Formats: sequence, structure tokens, C-alpha cells
Amino acid sequence: MTGASPRPPHAPRAAAAGGPGLFLTFEGGDGAGKTTQAALLEEWLRAQGREVVRTREPGGTDVGVRIRDIVLHHRGHIAPRAEALLYAADRAHHIETVVQPAIARGDVVIQDRYLDSSVAYQGAGRVLDADDVRELSLWATGGLLPDLTVLLDLDPAAARARLDADDKPFDRLEAEKAEFHERVRAAFLALAADEPNRFLVLDATEPALALAERVREAVASRLS
Amino acid sequence: MTGASPRPPHAPRAAAAGGPGLFLTFEGGDGAGKTTQAALLEEWLRAQGREVVRTREPGGTDVGVRIRDIVLHHRGHIAPRAEALLYAADRAHHIETVVQPAIARGDVVIQDRYLDSSVAYQGAGRVLDADDVRELSLWATGGLLPDLTVLLDLDPAAARARLDADDKPFDRLEAEKAEFHERVRAAFLALAADEPNRFLVLDATEPALALAERVREAVASRLS
Repeated sequence: MTGASPRPPHAPRAAAAGGPGLFLTFEGGDGAGKTTQAALLEEWLRAQGREVVRTREPGGTDVGVRIRDIVLHHRGHIAPRAEALLYAADRAHHIETVVQPAIARGDVVIQDRYLDSSVAYQGAGRVLDADDVRELSLWATGGLLPDLTVLLDLDPAAARARLDADDKPFDRLEAEKAEFHERVRAAFLALAADEPNRFLVLDATEPALALAERVREAVASRLS
Repeated sequence: MTGASPRPPHAPRAAAAGGPGLFLTFEGGDGAGKTTQAALLEEWLRAQGREVVRTREPGGTDVGVRIRDIVLHHRGHIAPRAEALLYAADRAHHIETVVQPAIARGDVVIQDRYLDSSVAYQGAGRVLDADDVRELSLWATGGLLPDLTVLLDLDPAAARARLDADDKPFDRLEAEKAEFHERVRAAFLALAADEPNRFLVLDATEPALALAERVREAVASRLS
């Protein structure tokens, strides 16, 4: 699959270059604590007087909800390239209609999952080339990269135990075997190693308030 | 938008290279007679003892029906890149699960609309670069091009009159203004001029049976 990469329309750019908005993403497996950390960060930012937009992929728009429903709950096979393209479609619509307008207003966007999830789950976890999946996302979004990506790193067995404790129903991705989640974790860590300035990697087994402090420090340095 | 093209995974290839199957597509605006010609061709091929698969995009699979519903009947704005990616997702699933298996069995696939429609409607008619849209489709399908594409060329005003006579309700695309359909027509003709060996361009105002004869001749030459 070398040479299969769609090229982005232009070089990736940071969201806040020349503007007051900030684009922050949380990444990591299910059960790593992304929702908790996003909520704590939102609370802190609002206390600082910042406007905050909390959003997520897939499913952050009305169109995205319908796409998410196809991807997560379709009974039967979905062609791997179709799945990657559906995620990219959700992303294109979400970035154009929600994220870019918020950044343009000067808001802080806190997003649950972005292109790193696509690369980790689709590229490393499935049969597609990771570079293809990344370039597809960049084409979809006009090359938008986050100012900061917080990776909540957690051993998949520990994540499984957390999700079991919550007694949440499994969706199609959660039902994949443990080996898949190990590959996803390794893929996330490799992405973080490739872009150390964009990523903050945290040990998700640390206490939530200690993690929140680390996140705040990183965000504060981007705001100033 | 120059330099925005995703590259296909490998050079486009004809479906039947090395195999007995054939991949035929009908293109043209709504009202040009694609359904009639596809039906006449199917009848003739079956009389020759060939297995035929009639299919269409968007919506040729269960996943595709759901995607088609989002694209055609969503109330409100869909980001142009999201729309292009949704069509590409439908295509990826359809080609992998319906068309490629049929070609591998040695069947003749007759398909209503393929990548030329995406290029003509999205690339020329909307805001996206035509080359981007084409390369996206080629990535989605692993580079599959039809053995023969029949373009039923018709003046948009004549097509409109035909559709009015049928008293069909307008969908979102049909409701676009006449100028859009003029640009689509010009885009189809330009695509045909670029690939004269793949395209058969017919004047859709000719009698249906005369057109069917021209189509049969072109298909017969590909079968032999």
C-alpha cells in the first residue's frame, strides 16, 4: 500500500496561528478517562473566563450522529476503506461546521478523539496503511492539527476492567479482541513519539486530579 | 486547491484484465435514459447466456442505502468535503462487496453511475477540485475503472422536461439551478474526451432502441 496516500491540500497548520482560539484533543482507548479530564479542563477554562466548545468524533454533528450510527452499529461487514471514508466524512463536516467557526471566534475547542484515533484504530488496528488514513483526515479537514493533544495512556487490560465496572454495553469496536487494543495503544504511543511538541502523554492510572493539573499546565502554556 | 489530490494506491486498471468479467457503467444527468438503456442491455446480455449484475451508486448496498439517505435527504448544509467522502465511502463498500466479487465470478456488471458522476457533480458542479474527487474515488476502489462507460448526453432543459412529464418529486440535487446542470453536462463531455477508449458518448435524444443497438455493439466488442 505504499504510494496510496491522499495528499493534504496544504501543509498541516496549527489552529491558533494568528488567532486567539485553541484546538485541544484528548486521545486514548475507551476507559482511559478522556471524558473526566475534558470536563475538568472545561471547568478550569470557564473559571478563567474562556469560552469553551466541548465536542467529539465521531458524531459531533447531526450528520455525524447518522454516520456514527452506520459505523458503530451496522450489522455485518463494512469494507475497511468505506469505514475510513465514513470517519473522514464525519470529520470533514464536524471541522467545517463546528470546530473552525469556534476557533475563529476565539473559543477553546476541547475534542474527544481526532485524527490520531483514526490512525491508531484504522491504520494500526485494521488492514489499511496508517499514512493513508492520516492523509485522508488531513484532506478532509484542510490540514487542521490540534495545538495540543493529550494522550491518556492505559494498559488495555486495565481499561477493560474499568469498563466492566461501569457495566457499559460493548459496541462493535469494544468487542474486538484484546490484541487489537494492544496494537492501538502502541500506535498512539508511536504517534506521540513522532510529534512530541503536539502531544502530552500521561499515565492514565494516576489520580484524576493530578492528571488534570498536568493538563492545565500544558494548556496554560499554549494560552499565554 | 492544487496539490490537494489523494493519490490512488496503484495505477488504474481495467476490470476484465486477465478475467472473464466485464464492468460497464452508464453516466449522464437524471432523465437521460440510463435506466432504460441498462434494462435493454441486461435483457440482451441474458439472451446471450451471460450472468448480469445490475447495480447503482449511491445506494447499491445496505450500507450504501443509509449513506445515500444522508447525502440526498439531509435537511441543511453538508460540508462539501464530507459529501465527497460519503460518496467515496458508499463506493468503497459497493465495489468491495458487490462489484469485485461479480467480476471475479465472470459476470457482467451494469452500473448506474460511478466515479465520473462524482467528478462531474462534485468536482465541476461544486467547490471541490475535480482531480481530488477522482483520486479519492480511485483510492476508495483500489483503482478500478470500467471497461466501458456509456455517456447518455442530453441538454439539461430537455432532461428537465422529461422529468417534469414523469411528475417525479425533486430531490436535493435535482433542485439545484439549471446552470449547475449545464456545468455537469460539460464536465461529463470533458471526461469522455479525456478517455475516448473507455467512453461511448451517445445523443440521448435518439430513439431508445437505436441507442440500445449502439450500446450492444460496444459491449459485444469488449466481450469478444
